[in-house]
Amino acid sequence: MSTAVPQDAGARPATSVDIARAVGLSQATVSRALNGGVVSEAARERILVAARDLGYRPNDVARGLKTRRTGVIGVVVSDILNPFYPEFLQALGSALTVRGERMLLQSGAGAGAEDREAEAVEALIRRRVDGIIATGATDASATLRELAASGYPVVLAHRTLPIDADTIESDNVAGAARVAGLLHSHGHRDVAVIAGDPGASTAQQRAIGFERRAAELGMTVRHEPGGFDADAASGAAMRVLGSGSRPTAVFGHNDTIAIAVLNVARRLGIDVPGELAVVGFDDIAAAGWPIVGLSTVRQPTAALAERAVELLTARLQEPDAAPRHEVLPIELVERTTTGPLRRTS
Amino acid sequence: MSTAVPQDAGARPATSVDIARAVGLSQATVSRALNGGVVSEAARERILVAARDLGYRPNDVARGLKTRRTGVIGVVVSDILNPFYPEFLQALGSALTVRGERMLLQSGAGAGAEDREAEAVEALIRRRVDGIIATGATDASATLRELAASGYPVVLAHRTLPIDADTIESDNVAGAARVAGLLHSHGHRDVAVIAGDPGASTAQQRAIGFERRAAELGMTVRHEPGGFDADAASGAAMRVLGSGSRPTAVFGHNDTIAIAVLNVARRLGIDVPGELAVVGFDDIAAAGWPIVGLSTVRQPTAALAERAVELLTARLQEPDAAPRHEVLPIELVERTTTGPLRRTS
Repeated sequence: MSTAVPQDAGARPATSVDIARAVGLSQATVSRALNGGVVSEAARERILVAARDLGYRPNDVARGLKTRRTGVIGVVVSDILNPFYPEFLQALGSALTVRGERMLLQSGAGAGAEDREAEAVEALIRRRVDGIIATGATDASATLRELAASGYPVVLAHRTLPIDADTIESDNVAGAARVAGLLHSHGHRDVAVIAGDPGASTAQQRAIGFERRAAELGMTVRHEPGGFDADAASGAAMRVLGSGSRPTAVFGHNDTIAIAVLNVARRLGIDVPGELAVVGFDDIAAAGWPIVGLSTVRQPTAALAERAVELLTARLQEPDAAPRHEVLPIELVERTTTGPLRRTS
Repeated sequence: MSTAVPQDAGARPATSVDIARAVGLSQATVSRALNGGVVSEAARERILVAARDLGYRPNDVARGLKTRRTGVIGVVVSDILNPFYPEFLQALGSALTVRGERMLLQSGAGAGAEDREAEAVEALIRRRVDGIIATGATDASATLRELAASGYPVVLAHRTLPIDADTIESDNVAGAARVAGLLHSHGHRDVAVIAGDPGASTAQQRAIGFERRAAELGMTVRHEPGGFDADAASGAAMRVLGSGSRPTAVFGHNDTIAIAVLNVARRLGIDVPGELAVVGFDDIAAAGWPIVGLSTVRQPTAALAERAVELLTARLQEPDAAPRHEVLPIELVERTTTGPLRRTS
């Protein structure tokens, strides 16, 4: 953990400087030893003994010192009402449990999202987690930027930012491009995209992937601002389907949006997929329900979670390694909301 | 939480005594105001202004000081894949945020649920939360029993146990009884109940409420063991609908079960509601989707969360008060999965 991060108080605890003085080694060596870095076994032993003698809290010592780890990873989630996140959290929990670690969750959702995210991150750090996995980063995530810049162990998972932190995400660009290809193959030329949060990398990448491929294929694309949550999505779906010049297909930037489109289509009596094809992104559980049958792009949710945990584990072991950016492949899942366009004219 | 808990450091903050001196009110009144107790609006206003002027950290103001509270409530959740829980957590988060408090979540889900619940509770306590709201208690929740017996501030919300802890739940018995009445009014006499976790109070109460009322009305009821999760529910739905002597209606102990029934019915080509009526419990968001249209019992999710937080707040202020057990009324919501039985014979 970096020295910039405040620790809980108590009596003033011994610092690495105190220990360095006591053992006659440099503070850098002491820090390295306490962080699990490379030092000689003899030095490590002396440092640990000194740490204990100087009244380091036993918790820190007992935990194998090497890393001063607490065995708890903080996870920040922005929107637990979007089923993708509970599914991702479940996968994160499993990946951590397998390693004997625990997950402490902070939700940063709601109004004033940036402030709440900052609060969530702060609250986790104050509770001495080993590092943080952030699942809902946006362009406005100032706290995550600062955290990464300060050297604090943080992994951006699912949504990413172009910063010096380890990141793991799905291939949103390729996934969205495949949606454009699928719709084109079914004869759709006039399509609408209902966008997610414009500050989220997922929405940005899905927009780029879809629109680039659609342009190559000569499709007309209408970009409708929306949002990843159900309310914003319903409003956008009404604007797209309620207008006189309705597209023949809609791509929602996530499944929540696509399901909102299905609901509005049902209300308006629009036949899916005969009159309207609908595709989402994520493959949440509800997409696979036979009564929903949503065609969508499947995110490798379990693999994302697994790699997020691995990246964080590696970071804790090698705090100074270069940040890694990884992208996992996706899969197109065609169900019953897409099919050949029924020509009505 | 107890006075043994260390506080985060900082410069010496203003105390309620400082504020009392500044505004010329008693320290007791100031404390009460800072804890959200009854004081005149005028007094509260003066106290808050003084608190701000004296350089109270806003968090501490909201928290009230006497109690050395950390402003963080631990929440244990058992199954985040059941959308009821994210919805409940969102409501809990809102209720806490309004009070300037934060929520630290631990998921105790998965294999070995009792062990994981115990670990989750322990992890929260170790991270110095002021108290715990447990949402997924079952008969096997030994840790919650012990915690309540030890006098630790714990509220059982949604699912309850007959122990000396504050509890808040919906009127599951009355809700299930109303489902029986609804199905009877539509002509159903041969119905199946797919049960949730037999160790959960919600499942126990819904079974009792439904079966008692159905017996009064002369209905034949088949009780099918299931489970609150989608996989167990699907298996149970297949057993009920795949058999030769199919009931004309199914009551699922939660919406996840009812939706599994709708999915199996769709796969088997059974018309809902003409050949089969389906009713759930909870009223999760998906129940209200036009493409699902599930008739169900609406839990007062926001009110449950609100009261859970109030009960815990009261408990922290009066640790020795007698435990309170509260039951909130429910509402039957009829949508498109119920209707008059179509006689086929």
